Amino acid sequence: MNMDTIVNLAKTRGFVFPGSEIYGGLANTWDYGPLGIELKNNVKAAWWKKFIQESPYNVGLDAAILMNPKTWDASGHLNNFNDPMIDCKSCKSRHRADKLIEDVMQKEDDTFVADGLSFDAMKEIIDDKNIDCPTCGAHDYTDIRQFNLMFKTFQGVTEGSTNELFLRPETAQGIFVNYKNVQRSMRKKLPFGIGQIGKSFRNEITPGNFTFRTREFDQMELEFFCKPGTEMEWQNYWKDFAVKWLKDLNLNEEKTRLREHDEDELSHYSNATTDIEYKFPFGWGELWGVASRTDYDLRQHMEHSKEDFRYHDPETNEKYIPYCIEPSLGLDRMTLAFLTDAYAEEELESGESRTVLRFHPALAPYKAAVLPLSKKLSSEAMEVYSLLAADFNVEFDESQSIGKRYRRQDEIGTPYCITFDFDSVEDKKVTVRDRDTMEQTRIAIDELHDFLSSRIKF
Amino acid sequence: MNMDTIVNLAKTRGFVFPGSEIYGGLANTWDYGPLGIELKNNVKAAWWKKFIQESPYNVGLDAAILMNPKTWDASGHLNNFNDPMIDCKSCKSRHRADKLIEDVMQKEDDTFVADGLSFDAMKEIIDDKNIDCPTCGAHDYTDIRQFNLMFKTFQGVTEGSTNELFLRPETAQGIFVNYKNVQRSMRKKLPFGIGQIGKSFRNEITPGNFTFRTREFDQMELEFFCKPGTEMEWQNYWKDFAVKWLKDLNLNEEKTRLREHDEDELSHYSNATTDIEYKFPFGWGELWGVASRTDYDLRQHMEHSKEDFRYHDPETNEKYIPYCIEPSLGLDRMTLAFLTDAYAEEELESGESRTVLRFHPALAPYKAAVLPLSKKLSSEAMEVYSLLAADFNVEFDESQSIGKRYRRQDEIGTPYCITFDFDSVEDKKVTVRDRDTMEQTRIAIDELHDFLSSRIKF
Repeated sequence: MNMDTIVNLAKTRGFVFPGSEIYGGLANTWDYGPLGIELKNNVKAAWWKKFIQESPYNVGLDAAILMNPKTWDASGHLNNFNDPMIDCKSCKSRHRADKLIEDVMQKEDDTFVADGLSFDAMKEIIDDKNIDCPTCGAHDYTDIRQFNLMFKTFQGVTEGSTNELFLRPETAQGIFVNYKNVQRSMRKKLPFGIGQIGKSFRNEITPGNFTFRTREFDQMELEFFCKPGTEMEWQNYWKDFAVKWLKDLNLNEEKTRLREHDEDELSHYSNATTDIEYKFPFGWGELWGVASRTDYDLRQHMEHSKEDFRYHDPETNEKYIPYCIEPSLGLDRMTLAFLTDAYAEEELESGESRTVLRFHPALAPYKAAVLPLSKKLSSEAMEVYSLLAADFNVEFDESQSIGKRYRRQDEIGTPYCITFDFDSVEDKKVTVRDRDTMEQTRIAIDELHDFLSSRIKF
Repeated sequence: MNMDTIVNLAKTRGFVFPGSEIYGGLANTWDYGPLGIELKNNVKAAWWKKFIQESPYNVGLDAAILMNPKTWDASGHLNNFNDPMIDCKSCKSRHRADKLIEDVMQKEDDTFVADGLSFDAMKEIIDDKNIDCPTCGAHDYTDIRQFNLMFKTFQGVTEGSTNELFLRPETAQGIFVNYKNVQRSMRKKLPFGIGQIGKSFRNEITPGNFTFRTREFDQMELEFFCKPGTEMEWQNYWKDFAVKWLKDLNLNEEKTRLREHDEDELSHYSNATTDIEYKFPFGWGELWGVASRTDYDLRQHMEHSKEDFRYHDPETNEKYIPYCIEPSLGLDRMTLAFLTDAYAEEELESGESRTVLRFHPALAPYKAAVLPLSKKLSSEAMEVYSLLAADFNVEFDESQSIGKRYRRQDEIGTPYCITFDFDSVEDKKVTVRDRDTMEQTRIAIDELHDFLSSRIKF
């Protein structure tokens, strides 16, 4: 299975369409179709349930995308949120120098990362390793320069630097600036966390790999505040918590790995960072970064604003700026990982083959499809549909032969097909087919609700 | 009750904080706090459940905010999405001419709207009615000019017109450009609808009234496609559907009204539009617009792209461009309506008073609060909390006297307080207090789940 197979299935089955496709698209933008948005919403819900709702520590937040620009001065994004850009003089194509290097070096060592290398060191590798322009094959580059990744816009009725704003490049800063408002209004004591799901924007030089790297994307970030000195314990806690979350949602453990950042790669404010990576069809990619950020962010905002972010510890009577652990996850690439991981092509006993998406039932766009065996049974079958639709996302399909309808539901990952036949009218039972085993069981209609409830539980 | 009361409660109780507050804010931006995001998510979920999940007609979508700019040419936003701007020459303040007029005229006639008036007609009213500058009181204005409301940004590594993009001013166009992808992949026949929840951005000249008019906001839009000639029937259907949705969520019917656009006010492509308005503390404001948009949008996109949007009717064998009904709702103002509508101050029999948010239980941020009567009962009460937290958003509070904890839960709209007392250890029952009646009932712990389930049902 390669990415083309996934991109094609995603488009034809209503998961993901190319953005603005009728106008030739727009760079690497993608629109989630009817099944894609259900899958994405299910991933969101699974995160919110475990990281916010069930957690005795954490609460949610939803900060605006547009923030006072002083935020980005304090956070360091105005000065430091740059990618190393290099141009090919021959064909004028533009590249990220670190990615050019990684693409080549990872063939030798798949854990190689270019983060932390100086521009000079990068240029040296490009020349030493004869890394030619991937567009035209020449080896005639400009120097490497900084390129700031924030999208700029203007608020109000005149364009100009006084009205300049940025689309947030991460949701995290919306949490830090609200630290005190949340702590006070929710009367929170350390340790506690604030989580948020929302859009961020990065003007990537080379977006790509389907929905893995896009300029507009959703993040699911938690900022967890704790007493200095306890941060390693909590970094482990949230790393384990994230790994368990992935496992419970059936992500293939053999395709995930943890990678600790070594000292060169660590951001200057971080004293430990672990990436959780997934093996996509195009190679290993970061899903989740679990970073110990010390008190860097709150301290920066304390220095740039007039707020006192120190916490008064009621137990020790000390005052200190909390330390912070940040498990930060990209929703779009997480959704992509679940989609590729679920994909399977199988030979059946009959000699036929089928494509099946083996989603965890909690993630599947439709929990069940109600299929009348004959159009004569439409109205009775529709009653079963309505019964279930109040609590589950279900489909009603009476379009083709039952075999073809099974194949379609397999291809979109529906865990249960519920066939309403002529006996159903009398015995009030239906045949439930399991997506993975293809086994069929006769179940009473009034037990369907509990049957589905118990199976989609997460 | 006035808006200040709501703004203050929203801030101190964790519903809505001023955006970027530690840096002096940013125009009229707002951040949803831990309770605000739960409320807003519940409003979203209630809309999605009724308009998408349970509807046999509709499916969901989630298109990107950044679209190919040709979209905005075709939709007419580049040329026509303007507000009438007027400046006070004396104090240099900037105003929307239509809003200046409405603020004054609506005191005489609260259904007056300035939409559809020409610039000359507006200027005449401003002069005739002596509408002075609300900032400084002078009457010395510039002419009225057009101001385009789209936020502009730049994609890629050079700023310039070829890389100019716009933040979408409505989610609707993301639906229209995907019409064919959705119809094909979901094998939809007319009539069917495509719904979407997401951020839009409008560079409003004068944002204000708390979260009612902000530059960044969430929309919940449905585009419902039907056969030409049936559009009036469907406009009525969705108008009634929306009214029922509001009523089922307990919005005060006496504070809602329908307002039909008359011919002057109708957009040139619309043959009927009904606004559903709500009486906010600052006056009547539009919640929902239910517009019959004819085939305007699909036709525009058909002319500007190479796509054929005509539908081949399998019954009549005709080919036609579908007509479209658009029920379009602002999520932030809807959330604000539910918040202000829920607010009540009451005198109790004891002579004390209480503030209570009478949310529909489906909308309440917390469904229940678990309150141990004594800290000695913490761990047993925590078990009850964990039992419920798997399926409901619940709070655990052991902070103060039980009376104060009741008041706090009333103020944040929690429908049920569950008190765990010393008897609970023995009889496995708890006392459940109803927010609205303040009645207390003894309920078995293993019945709590069903009790809450049945009451929050929507």
